[in-house]
Formats: sequence, C-alpha cells, structure tokens
Amino acid sequence: MEFFSLKFENDKLVFLDQTKLPDEENYISTDDYNRIAEAIERLEIRGAPLIGIAALYALSLAVKDSISNFDNAFERLKKTRPTAVNLFNALNQAKEFFYSSKENQNYLSLLNFAKNFHQKDIDYCNRIAKNGFDFISKKFNRKVRVLTHCNTGSLATGGIGTAFGVILELSKNDLVEIVYACEARPLLQGLRLTSFELKKNNINYKVITDSTAAFLMQKGLVDFVIVGADRIASNGDTANKIGTYSLALSAKHHSIPFLVAAPSTSIDKNISSGKEIIIEERNPDELLSFGNRRIINSQIDALNFAFDLTPNELITAIVTEEKVLLPPFDFSR
Amino acid sequence: MEFFSLKFENDKLVFLDQTKLPDEENYISTDDYNRIAEAIERLEIRGAPLIGIAALYALSLAVKDSISNFDNAFERLKKTRPTAVNLFNALNQAKEFFYSSKENQNYLSLLNFAKNFHQKDIDYCNRIAKNGFDFISKKFNRKVRVLTHCNTGSLATGGIGTAFGVILELSKNDLVEIVYACEARPLLQGLRLTSFELKKNNINYKVITDSTAAFLMQKGLVDFVIVGADRIASNGDTANKIGTYSLALSAKHHSIPFLVAAPSTSIDKNISSGKEIIIEERNPDELLSFGNRRIINSQIDALNFAFDLTPNELITAIVTEEKVLLPPFDFSR
Repeated sequence: MEFFSLKFENDKLVFLDQTKLPDEENYISTDDYNRIAEAIERLEIRGAPLIGIAALYALSLAVKDSISNFDNAFERLKKTRPTAVNLFNALNQAKEFFYSSKENQNYLSLLNFAKNFHQKDIDYCNRIAKNGFDFISKKFNRKVRVLTHCNTGSLATGGIGTAFGVILELSKNDLVEIVYACEARPLLQGLRLTSFELKKNNINYKVITDSTAAFLMQKGLVDFVIVGADRIASNGDTANKIGTYSLALSAKHHSIPFLVAAPSTSIDKNISSGKEIIIEERNPDELLSFGNRRIINSQIDALNFAFDLTPNELITAIVTEEKVLLPPFDFSR
Repeated sequence: MEFFSLKFENDKLVFLDQTKLPDEENYISTDDYNRIAEAIERLEIRGAPLIGIAALYALSLAVKDSISNFDNAFERLKKTRPTAVNLFNALNQAKEFFYSSKENQNYLSLLNFAKNFHQKDIDYCNRIAKNGFDFISKKFNRKVRVLTHCNTGSLATGGIGTAFGVILELSKNDLVEIVYACEARPLLQGLRLTSFELKKNNINYKVITDSTAAFLMQKGLVDFVIVGADRIASNGDTANKIGTYSLALSAKHHSIPFLVAAPSTSIDKNISSGKEIIIEERNPDELLSFGNRRIINSQIDALNFAFDLTPNELITAIVTEEKVLLPPFDFSR
C-alpha cells in the first residue's frame, strides 16, 4: 500500500500519525493550526524538513481563520521544537513573505508559499539522492553495505528523504547489499519508521540496537554510514539524532566514510559552530516507554537528550541538493 | 525492602525472576534443574558470575534425584548460554570434583561444592570492590561521575557485584557524585536492574540511552567508565554486553579511563585473544520487545548480538579480586 507523511487537500492538512507506526497507519485530518503544532511537539509529524513544511501549512490555516492570527501562530509554531533549523528557516521565510507586501497577506497567497516550499523540498530530496548516489557509486563501484540512523525518508521530509533518498537511489540501481538501520532509542524512529520504509521499498535490511553499530564496523560489515541532519553550523558541525556522534566516532576509528545528507534548509549560516546549537532535552519518561507506550511503571530517573553534536572533523562529506561538499566546510557565505 | 538474586534453602533454589523487574519482585522456588536451566536461558537468572553459581546449584539438585543424572545435567546446563566463561569454568570445576573421588559423588558433597563456589564469589566481589575503590579514589581524590553499562550488581553475581561493587564502595565513602547507567537495549538490564539497585542503595543516578554515552563524554560529564565482563581472553580482550565496545571507543577518544571489573572466574586462560570467543546471537524479536514484553506486532528483520568484543588496547585497567592489572595484560599463566 502507498503511504504519505502529509498532504494538503480540501483546505485541510492530512498527516500520518507516525507515533502509531508500524502497527497502525492512522491519518489525521485537521484545519486547526494548534493541532498541527501539537502534532509536531508529540512527534506525530517529525523529521527536520517535514516539520518546516507542516509549520507553513499550519501558518496558512491560521491565516485562513483570520489574518490577525499570523503573529500568534508564528510564535506558537516556533516553540514546538528547538533543534532543527528547518522549522525556523521556513517560518522566517514565510514571515518575510507575509510582511513584504499587502498582497501576500491572505490565505491563498500563504498557502501557495507553503506549497512552493513543499515542492522545493521534494526537488531538494531528489537532487540530494542523485548527488549522494554519484558520490557513493563512484567511490565503491559495487554493491554496498550501508549503516544509517533514525529516520530520514519520506516520513521525515516532503519528498523521498535525505540520507534515505540516497539509499533509495542506490537501491534502484541495484547497488544495495544491505542496510543496517539503528533503532534510535528512545522513540525508535529507526525500528518503527525506517524499517517500515525499507520494507515498502523492498530493500534488504536488518534493524540493530544503536550500540551494535560499532561492533558491526569492527567485524568489517559496514562500507559507509549516512545520516541526516537537524542543523548544520557554518563550519559543518552537525546536530542530529542522539547517537549520531557515537556512530561518527566509531566510523572514524574504523576508517569508514561518514556522510551527512541534508537540504540547504538544514544549514544555519548564522552560527559559526555547533556549540551554539540548542540540544533539545525531552521528557525523561520517554526512556520508560517503547515507541509511545509507557511500559515501566516504577519511578526511574533518566536523562533524555534528543540530539547530539558531531564535530566537522568526523564528517567525510556533506551531501546537499547543490553538491557533495568535502572538508573543510564553510557555509558562512 | 531487601532483595536477593538467589538463595539455596530447604533443598530448593529460590531466585528472583529478573525479567519482571523493576515493576514486580517475583521469587521462584524450584528443585528442578531443568527449570533452572530454562531460567538461565530466559535471563530470569543472568549475569556472568551468577549463572555459574546457579548452574552448580542446579547440578546438585540433578544429582539429588539420581547420581546418574550428572552427565545429562552437565550437558544441559552447558548449552544454556555460550559467551560467559564463568558458566563453563564452574561446571568444569564441579565435574572434576565429582569424578575425582567416589566420596564426592552425592548430593550433599556437590551442594557443599556449590555453596563454597557461591561463597567464593561473594568474597571475590568484596575484594574487587576494594581493589577498584583503591585505584579510583587514588586516581581522582574527589567525588566522581561514573558511567556504567548493563547490570553488574548483586543481581548479576553471588555478592555485591563487580563493576557495581566498585561503585557501591565509592558510594559508601561518599565519593560518588552521579552514576550514568546505560539502559542496555534490547533487554534493558541497565534501565530495569541497575536503576533498581542504585535506588535500593540511595545512589544518585540517571539512566541514559546507550547512544547518549558518547555525548556525555563530549560534554565533559564523565570521569571514568567501569563495566563487567562475560569473558576475558589471555591478552585482555573482553567480551561483554553489546555496546561495551562503543563505550570503550568513545572513552579512548575522550581520554577517559575505561575499567573492566571481573572475578578471575571470568578469565579464559585457554584462549589467546578475543577472536576465539563465541558471541551469542539471540532471537531478533528481542528488539521488538521492551523488557520481555512484545510490543511491536509487525514483522521486522533484526540482528541481535548479545555481546561484543573490546580489544585490550582500549582497556585502561582490569580489576580482579587479586589486583588491578595494567596493560599489557597477560593471563596465560
């Protein structure tokens, strides 16, 4: 069966509730921007590029009710998640558009802006996939064994995905031997979502616990690692799902290429290094849950960073829609 | 409330079903050696030193029914788990004892042997704790922030634990600022069992997902790492819970001491390096479960190595009941 992460139709946003995957494919339809903000907070809609897109549709719906809602909706949506820069980039672009001309201050104009933004992400995904494919197929010239983390596919973006899009393009050319998908505790986006997308695309895969990755590298089972990004600083430092840093360290130790795939909307030119990125700390009780279900009833103290920081010196290449960048990275211009 | 991992009384083994912790403290009482073998397979009884002890009590109970059961029980118990060498060391010692003299070939003699073996583990734990404490308190001379993995406490041994025993001794001397306990997916011995023991001992702690460890090291929050061992080769290569290797790599990168604490019963003098250790692969469906409850119903392919291998060059010191060993390690004599 076909699936989609979100779709705008009949003046409503229809989105797949990702917290219920893979066991249930529930679509939720709403024209309430607050409900979309909640969906972003609860990770019903997640993935750095996708939350930027969802936020713009939400902003349009807010303005549909009343143009005077714009600023409130903007602030509400800005507060949903702190780490992925795509959200802020999207919202700021929409704000500039909205205030640049009276003609833009209506539902249809803003909706059109959101749709264009969405379409641009679809294009970016395709171009990232192509650029990553060229780089990898040239480097290996044979079937590859890929390790990836969290979910970076069509559930995380407006299109086919970032890191996952590269894998998909390799697979279409019969160049994937196996994908090792890290489960991504605590919320298991790898176990629940990436496996779901890998199955839908008939790609050979195994899910592993996050801490198994280094051992597979030691055993010589991994050709390269590819991950997405929630925010990339001007110097290439990358914030991504917790566990990414550990993978990058292990890849470095085993001399395995470590690639980051992300659209330019994930780049934050305003910060010079990763030190300036706010790392989201989420509710520690997420560790006592499996997916979204609370399983352990006892009180247990936990610490729950949702992201971590990978310094640029551990990154072999950054794949954007424009090109494949090699170190030293400089996105400040 | 006090708890215990296992106790032999009234000709029965009483053990805590660790798969139900921390929400339920269920004790199971049995005089059936097969039931004990099953308990080891299902991880109701787990921890390298503890399964060796449990196996000897099981062997005694087998012989109580009939002396002719010895060989069958020996073989049955040997097959329960492949990686921890304590099991084989314990069983082989019992076999040598049993066959060395007719006088030893009865229930009470064998039970006495098991009880002595158990008592020896209690002593070993205390001495490991003391040795580890001396090493760490001398090295830091202040309160420490410890990172540990899986469970190595009284639930994993006959006594106070190995790595956990060291932490306990530091805590008794008010030298523990915080313990970061890795949850140890998939079966969550850290989240479920180590947190349980830390709470019972009033030690300040936070449980983290396994992949968070490297990020805490990057943030400068970890003074040293201490783990147990399932088997140590003559050259110091150490098999331990999956994820240990990743922790050792991260510790090395951040110049953080990485300690292994284990009794001499975890040392396998018969193998020259870790390459000869069989790494247990368990049912992949354990990844679809939380603790022991199946949560995801969809079919997902997974790979489930229960242990990994940490090469000796990543280990700062090995703490045994005899002393603290520094590299190069040589246990061949």
